[in-house]
Amino acid sequence: MDLLKLVYTVSFLTVVIAFAYAVYLHFWVKRQPAENARIREVSGLIHAGANTFMRKEYFVLARFAGIAAILILIFLPGPIWNGNALENISMAAAYLAGTVLSAIAGKIGILVATHANSRAAEGAQRGLKPAFLIGFRGGAVMGLSVVGFCLLGVMAVLMITADASVLLGFSFGASSLALFAKAGGGIFTKTADVAADLTGKVELGIPEDDPRNPAVIADNVGDNVGDVAGMGADLFDSNVAAMASALVMAQALDGGVGANAAMVFCYAAIGLLASIIGIACARVGKNGNPTRALNSSTYSTTILFILLTAAATAFLDGFEWRIWGASSVGLLVGVVIGITTDYFTDDTKPVVRKVAHASQSGPAFTVLSGISYGFISSLPAMVGIAVSALTAYKLCEPLGEGYALFGIAMAAVGMLSIVGMIISNDAYGPIVDNARGLAEMGGLGEETIRVADELDSAGNTVKAVTKGFSIGAAGLTVISLLGAYMSEVNVSLAVQGKELITGFDIMDPTVFFGILIGASVPAVFSAMLMLGVDKNAQKMVQEIRRQFREIAGLKEGKEGVKADYDTCINIATEGALQELIPAGLLAILATVLVGFIGGPLAVGGFLLGNIVSGLLLALFMSNAGGLWDNAKKYIEAGNEGGKGSEAHKAAVTGDTVGDPFKDTAGPSINTQITVVSLVASLLSSLFAAFSLFG
Amino acid sequence: MDLLKLVYTVSFLTVVIAFAYAVYLHFWVKRQPAENARIREVSGLIHAGANTFMRKEYFVLARFAGIAAILILIFLPGPIWNGNALENISMAAAYLAGTVLSAIAGKIGILVATHANSRAAEGAQRGLKPAFLIGFRGGAVMGLSVVGFCLLGVMAVLMITADASVLLGFSFGASSLALFAKAGGGIFTKTADVAADLTGKVELGIPEDDPRNPAVIADNVGDNVGDVAGMGADLFDSNVAAMASALVMAQALDGGVGANAAMVFCYAAIGLLASIIGIACARVGKNGNPTRALNSSTYSTTILFILLTAAATAFLDGFEWRIWGASSVGLLVGVVIGITTDYFTDDTKPVVRKVAHASQSGPAFTVLSGISYGFISSLPAMVGIAVSALTAYKLCEPLGEGYALFGIAMAAVGMLSIVGMIISNDAYGPIVDNARGLAEMGGLGEETIRVADELDSAGNTVKAVTKGFSIGAAGLTVISLLGAYMSEVNVSLAVQGKELITGFDIMDPTVFFGILIGASVPAVFSAMLMLGVDKNAQKMVQEIRRQFREIAGLKEGKEGVKADYDTCINIATEGALQELIPAGLLAILATVLVGFIGGPLAVGGFLLGNIVSGLLLALFMSNAGGLWDNAKKYIEAGNEGGKGSEAHKAAVTGDTVGDPFKDTAGPSINTQITVVSLVASLLSSLFAAFSLFG
Repeated sequence: MDLLKLVYTVSFLTVVIAFAYAVYLHFWVKRQPAENARIREVSGLIHAGANTFMRKEYFVLARFAGIAAILILIFLPGPIWNGNALENISMAAAYLAGTVLSAIAGKIGILVATHANSRAAEGAQRGLKPAFLIGFRGGAVMGLSVVGFCLLGVMAVLMITADASVLLGFSFGASSLALFAKAGGGIFTKTADVAADLTGKVELGIPEDDPRNPAVIADNVGDNVGDVAGMGADLFDSNVAAMASALVMAQALDGGVGANAAMVFCYAAIGLLASIIGIACARVGKNGNPTRALNSSTYSTTILFILLTAAATAFLDGFEWRIWGASSVGLLVGVVIGITTDYFTDDTKPVVRKVAHASQSGPAFTVLSGISYGFISSLPAMVGIAVSALTAYKLCEPLGEGYALFGIAMAAVGMLSIVGMIISNDAYGPIVDNARGLAEMGGLGEETIRVADELDSAGNTVKAVTKGFSIGAAGLTVISLLGAYMSEVNVSLAVQGKELITGFDIMDPTVFFGILIGASVPAVFSAMLMLGVDKNAQKMVQEIRRQFREIAGLKEGKEGVKADYDTCINIATEGALQELIPAGLLAILATVLVGFIGGPLAVGGFLLGNIVSGLLLALFMSNAGGLWDNAKKYIEAGNEGGKGSEAHKAAVTGDTVGDPFKDTAGPSINTQITVVSLVASLLSSLFAAFSLFG
Repeated sequence: MDLLKLVYTVSFLTVVIAFAYAVYLHFWVKRQPAENARIREVSGLIHAGANTFMRKEYFVLARFAGIAAILILIFLPGPIWNGNALENISMAAAYLAGTVLSAIAGKIGILVATHANSRAAEGAQRGLKPAFLIGFRGGAVMGLSVVGFCLLGVMAVLMITADASVLLGFSFGASSLALFAKAGGGIFTKTADVAADLTGKVELGIPEDDPRNPAVIADNVGDNVGDVAGMGADLFDSNVAAMASALVMAQALDGGVGANAAMVFCYAAIGLLASIIGIACARVGKNGNPTRALNSSTYSTTILFILLTAAATAFLDGFEWRIWGASSVGLLVGVVIGITTDYFTDDTKPVVRKVAHASQSGPAFTVLSGISYGFISSLPAMVGIAVSALTAYKLCEPLGEGYALFGIAMAAVGMLSIVGMIISNDAYGPIVDNARGLAEMGGLGEETIRVADELDSAGNTVKAVTKGFSIGAAGLTVISLLGAYMSEVNVSLAVQGKELITGFDIMDPTVFFGILIGASVPAVFSAMLMLGVDKNAQKMVQEIRRQFREIAGLKEGKEGVKADYDTCINIATEGALQELIPAGLLAILATVLVGFIGGPLAVGGFLLGNIVSGLLLALFMSNAGGLWDNAKKYIEAGNEGGKGSEAHKAAVTGDTVGDPFKDTAGPSINTQITVVSLVASLLSSLFAAFSLFG
């Protein structure tokens, strides 16, 4: 089929361009000056700490992935003794490929981020413009690689197996790795961050990133392993899941790999292309506003995507305008969700200022008002996801049976199309955050720190927008995964000669049973991660206090006296490794249990409950966390009493609560939802064959 | 029909006994000595403050109820110009009856509680035994009246109209009043409590209930208007809703008022009887444990109910054992939910102690660990509700079409059957809490305060059990209300000649649209209430600080210098009156909007989303709040550093966050869910007739 060949070729070429550009940017970053010896030293410590953690984490994950691959080989898509060994082998191979590509994406992120941070710090000496460019281009390397690997991986699986349902295995590989990487990285980073803030800022009154604080290196390592590697794995997974579910449906519609599949690839490739152009054009003026620069790149990439896909739809045979509409609606709603999120978390807007003001009455008011606004902030995003799903469905319904759900899947693909740009913006944040720390530790002076602060603050604000995007996209993706689950179950039911499922009626008590249990899983999942942070941070706080007590001259900053950074890094590492598996495993086991107890209908309800409460909690936590962070920054900028005031202390408490909200639990819920949906789809044949009450 | 007459007679007699016993207990309480002049004075202030607030609140509510009654008269069940004026009149009258009975129940609670508090305080001088009995019997007056009015009201409506669907109007009257009474009382009580704690305990280091604190009377008024009147209205509403939805279904099954309706009344009457016996037997030994006394009355009432209903089922014709099973399962699961809730909130159990221990590392850890355990605590209750719904459904399914849902409704009736006992336990709490305050303010000495403290702590612990009960019951009730909604919609659709609804399929994007929006409503609703507390408490904190600054000698406790209590009561009153309408109105308007935009299917989804996220958030907030409260008390008892330590300050912050969680937002969500379900049922004909995309 010519259309398909054309699209594959274009996609492949786009990937090649993306990789080439990523390599170019990487070397561009490495070429930037890195001369300050102290910064080089600290940067080296961060690099080493991050690599040690990643190595240990991947070792744990490799064992998990190995076990999972063996289970897949034996049981999926059907028990191997049923004679379909080849199918099982390709599923297990796809699973492993998903985990490996996800791991590589995380690794690349760490590599470039730990080079970019020191160079951005030194760049800040020369001004906003060069520092911004180093931070952003460092992030872009990650963005381009993640999307490139995603497109390449999905294409490879589909070309080799010619069966889209194997993509579910690939996607499961990506998302199971992302789940644990995100949980592990998230626990690591917040353990260090929380402990460093509480002992440093609150107890001793020394600045953030002061080299006397023993947790300061661990904190910076955390930015890399949590915010760069974890986030990369997360968005890799969302992107793969969105494409996989769209392609599974396209296969059903096309009766094989056809025009609809071509459309998925074509749109994804155009999204990558638009991101490349957007990245290439991103600039900030000498006294420009970095937030505006980041956001305007996002907006121009959005417009570019909509125009280019319109052109493709006009010129290519079999491309439907209604589907183009669905994908455009998805992307536009994503932007709108981002903007409303921004309203709740930007310190130039009233909400953050109200929370900052409430802090004057004590920490309880900071926490209460933050939680309240966090709850309210979930509304626009929930409405946005609901409206885009409904619109996409209604738009594509007239195209025929099955197209309505495909429309929702394409809305998710649309929302994630510019993910290359999103990741660049997102990874920019921890790089400049690190740069700020290095500027402080390297003693680069007030003015450089001020520049780094401005860049860092932009990173925080933009993060809100990108998080809104990724949660929204996850929401749409899992709706379409629910559709994928239903068609997978029905395939199995048909084979077993049982009655097919026509839907999941909430009045059916089995479905309802699943819904209630599914709804509590994200709450328990995020609680487990937060308790992990809580426990480890308390341990680290004790260690920091010990060092200040026992190491003579450390507190006073005596020449030559050094904090013992390694012990703190070890506490964070060991803690994270211990806690990263149980929470994710709980979610997976709950799915399996509900399936074997309540059967396929209960699992459908379980997925729904999981999606609904997961979205609500993810939005609440991410936004409340961002809100507290910026309220604290707003006070630190001299408002409501400024640094050191009672309001500031209260705001630090809010920020400390918000840290695991926004960087550990909140963003992990996304992945948890996706993983659970994929587990359900993959195991559907088993649930169909056996369940207690099904 | 003889069976029905028998059951009506028995029910009526039980109500008469309950009322007679309540009157007896009321006078018994009034006969107890109240001699201390200072206590009489303060108790008088509390009484006056509570009455003033209730009068103002009921004035606001009367206007709302009036407008609602007029709207009902015009539009429900169908537009009055369609010629069914009589139906509309009886619906409006039933609505008003519901509001009036609910208001009377609240009023009675206040009356007896404000008599019992001073007498319990003086009783504490004579020991645990008499003080316990006064507190408990005061609460019992409320418990017996609420259940009596409920049974009487439901019977009257059914006997007069012979149409169970009019009960939905009665129930809506009860629940709309409860919604606002609970919100208003909840905001009042926590405004005062939070402000009093923060300024008194934290800033000035004076004890709780110290008469120098200007907010102390307002705080005690709050216990009455929030915890007594509000809680009474809430449980009146749940009980009516459970009976109403069961009777609507029974009518469909019986084709009129028949054996199934008789069973509903019979079981409710037996529940009341069992509660009367349980109340009469409640005692605590001289050095006994009041917590155990309260809990064991609950357990014996439970056993009594199960045995008596078994006897009734064996002897009465047309009573089905399977339905007995469903109601017993409901009650037993309620008890189990209560016990698991207790595990998370009792300070002899590990969870509270862990949170207390975490407080040593600062308030952020108190908050984080409390939120985490609060999240986890939702799991057992969600599983419990899911299991009881599924069991009740499967048990009753073999009885024929429609019986399965009736089984769920009867599980709710079973869970609420012993509500007379539950309310007695629940109202006991604020009475002894007040008594503790009066003992402090009346200067009754250390030993009396210690006794009052012990009684108060038992109240807190038992509250967790009763809250678990009421949330669980609300969960089951709204599931059956969902069924009632579907049958109401179908009646309208049939009349309009449209296609009937067979269920709410979550794969239908209209349903899904409703689910997502419904899920965000409880979050926004509770946020609005908490922001109300937050705002008003900040105002009151400023006022308290002003008084300590401007009234000479107040801080030092100079003889004859009095705080200006009235200004604080006014701040709480005005604030609560301003905030009590918007949040509830939002929930109602959201239902109407979703109905007119998405039609009947979207509303079904909306109800589901609302139930699921509402249950999750209600459980989370109630339990986290109870947990923090007891962690603070545990530290105050001398653990983890004791009073005045850093850990204690952190625990006070946790408790302050938890106050509006557990006493404003959490318990109001119950009512919000019920109200929304009833609005949907009542407006179903309008949604069926017109909607944008339905």
